Amino acid sequence: MENFDFYNPVNILFGKGKIAEINKHIPKNAKILMTYGGGSIKKNGVYDQVIDALDGYSITEFSGIEANPHFETLMKAVGIVRSEKIDFLLAVGGGSVLDGTKFIAAATYFEGDEWDILANRAPISKAVDLGAVLTLAATGSEMNSGGVVTKAATKEKKAFGNPLLFPKFSVLDPETTYSLPRRQIVNGIVDAYVHVMEQYLTYPVNSPVQDRFAEGILLTLLEEGPKGLASDTPDYENRANLMWAATMALNGLIGMGVKSDWATHMIGHELTAFHGIDHAVTLAIVLPGLLTKLKEQRGEKLLQYAERIWNITEGSDEERKTLAIQKTEEFFQSVGIGTRLSDHNVGQDSIDTISKRFLERGYVGMLPDVAVTDVAEILEARL
Amino acid sequence: MENFDFYNPVNILFGKGKIAEINKHIPKNAKILMTYGGGSIKKNGVYDQVIDALDGYSITEFSGIEANPHFETLMKAVGIVRSEKIDFLLAVGGGSVLDGTKFIAAATYFEGDEWDILANRAPISKAVDLGAVLTLAATGSEMNSGGVVTKAATKEKKAFGNPLLFPKFSVLDPETTYSLPRRQIVNGIVDAYVHVMEQYLTYPVNSPVQDRFAEGILLTLLEEGPKGLASDTPDYENRANLMWAATMALNGLIGMGVKSDWATHMIGHELTAFHGIDHAVTLAIVLPGLLTKLKEQRGEKLLQYAERIWNITEGSDEERKTLAIQKTEEFFQSVGIGTRLSDHNVGQDSIDTISKRFLERGYVGMLPDVAVTDVAEILEARL
Repeated sequence: MENFDFYNPVNILFGKGKIAEINKHIPKNAKILMTYGGGSIKKNGVYDQVIDALDGYSITEFSGIEANPHFETLMKAVGIVRSEKIDFLLAVGGGSVLDGTKFIAAATYFEGDEWDILANRAPISKAVDLGAVLTLAATGSEMNSGGVVTKAATKEKKAFGNPLLFPKFSVLDPETTYSLPRRQIVNGIVDAYVHVMEQYLTYPVNSPVQDRFAEGILLTLLEEGPKGLASDTPDYENRANLMWAATMALNGLIGMGVKSDWATHMIGHELTAFHGIDHAVTLAIVLPGLLTKLKEQRGEKLLQYAERIWNITEGSDEERKTLAIQKTEEFFQSVGIGTRLSDHNVGQDSIDTISKRFLERGYVGMLPDVAVTDVAEILEARL
Repeated sequence: MENFDFYNPVNILFGKGKIAEINKHIPKNAKILMTYGGGSIKKNGVYDQVIDALDGYSITEFSGIEANPHFETLMKAVGIVRSEKIDFLLAVGGGSVLDGTKFIAAATYFEGDEWDILANRAPISKAVDLGAVLTLAATGSEMNSGGVVTKAATKEKKAFGNPLLFPKFSVLDPETTYSLPRRQIVNGIVDAYVHVMEQYLTYPVNSPVQDRFAEGILLTLLEEGPKGLASDTPDYENRANLMWAATMALNGLIGMGVKSDWATHMIGHELTAFHGIDHAVTLAIVLPGLLTKLKEQRGEKLLQYAERIWNITEGSDEERKTLAIQKTEEFFQSVGIGTRLSDHNVGQDSIDTISKRFLERGYVGMLPDVAVTDVAEILEARL
């Protein structure tokens, strides 16, 4: 196990009815900016629950934060926060609203070009306090201090993070997910699955606790995902388990002391930036290609994954590794995701563009086993 | 899954050499009280590492915090904190030193009889900031906000807790455990194991993530415990895994949304209070008796435990449950713990005394399936 620092002060308020408690966690004299997306929270009752809980507070609203939130949109909110002297941000939505709100929190007090926070990971030293009401189990943003924001003008999708951006609290009420379209439930399951894989399916460092926690999340997603999708009527326990699994997948815990990768995310981000493909779908496209390319280097972990997750115990090492990757892709397909670039009308020309971007950038993930020169091969295998 | 709040802001500094970083986490002008036990830290180099890291700080020392720390001892430290205007407590030791230091932190600003914090769970509204350098993986105190303190005069062992008592940071350097006697390593393994069992081996509430995390810790302890004990030469990775497992066993996470018990601890505390038996040993004595008594009520979880931890898949329900309890007791014995009261010269007269105390108190654990009238039967089966 490698040395690590672990710090996660987010106060999680989990369960039905917990939105009513948010007023215990926001200073009474706070000037709140409530951020949300396209307005689905006005149809499913979440908006009303939040407004009821915040009776007596000063609330300004900022709606219209889109999926893969745009720098351009968020800077409008930053303007409001600055001019209205907002001192608390309440994000109500899924990972895009949460990520976007974290960026608003970081950019408000930033001196200089706010794009530097994303482009150059410029340090931030002060942020607006924020809280979250989660409505989609997927990204883990509710219990971490990072986010991803896209500059629409240049089609660049970039990550940022700072401990100042941990939400003070996050409400995880499984009932808020009841009205989600199937596509978003599917995306959440796959997103959480790949978050785990980025931290787990790398190299052994003798970390049995972290490994078993990661495997526990994967097994839960494999069981609860299809179970939830099999019925049109949402089941509370099922949604609760998916929600908690997604949060635990990316709150830092399973990544402590182990080797994390994130190359699948980095490549996937480009597919979203250039083609607008759903984030989770890009991960389902890239991951099988990446693991196939790294079958030898990551063989030890792949064999562990094959046995503990897929119960694959027979055959040669090569056969077990291949089968584990195949089972993973079949799982993504089984929940309705097209795992080939051709399923999304992406061709060789786009691979060339994306590959060029990595060649200029000079890195892919956090491990040296995926070189910038490998990106084209990984994507070409996914045509 | 039941509703829950999860909040754990402890900054964990994990790994060799991390003691050197504590000065980043203590205000430069702090007046520190450094608390420790019998002085083993002066022999194994930990004391020197701490002093080196705190070069330039004002440090007062308070040594002599005993195992199962005494209220009487801790109140002496409270006097020093008050008179010297100490504003940071640094606990250097195992669970007893950490628990004791939390009590010092809570008692310093308490108005009234400080024993009320323990006897009546009197609320505290202010506490001295504290940090910890852990030297024994066992109790989880390094990443939670509770503790247990004993009044020597009346042989009462009582728990307390408050979110104000989370350490600001805890250093977990596996190398600090290298000089521990075998008995303390064993106690740590068994203590952590039973911490998990108190939160896991109760009733199913459809919590697959929590269950698998709990099982992951148990499996790690079952693998790494005997591995570490098999050699006289400490192995870094082994000690690291035991340390992280013990921390994760009682930092609140696996207990979220599930039914926790703690009856084994409550009964065990009395064996320690009256007979001075090591805490972990009392747990190893009581747990098999408690599970046997509750074999029917907790059958569903016992069968899950039998299969996932002990790979017991054959035989009737009754046979599998019985075998799982037997395997658990054999594990405790295999690491050198006498699991019978007679191994520790405790007889019927003591059972009568302990049983009477529970009858007066009116409760045992947190679940209704262990009644005060059951305590005698549970202990008699362990004679």
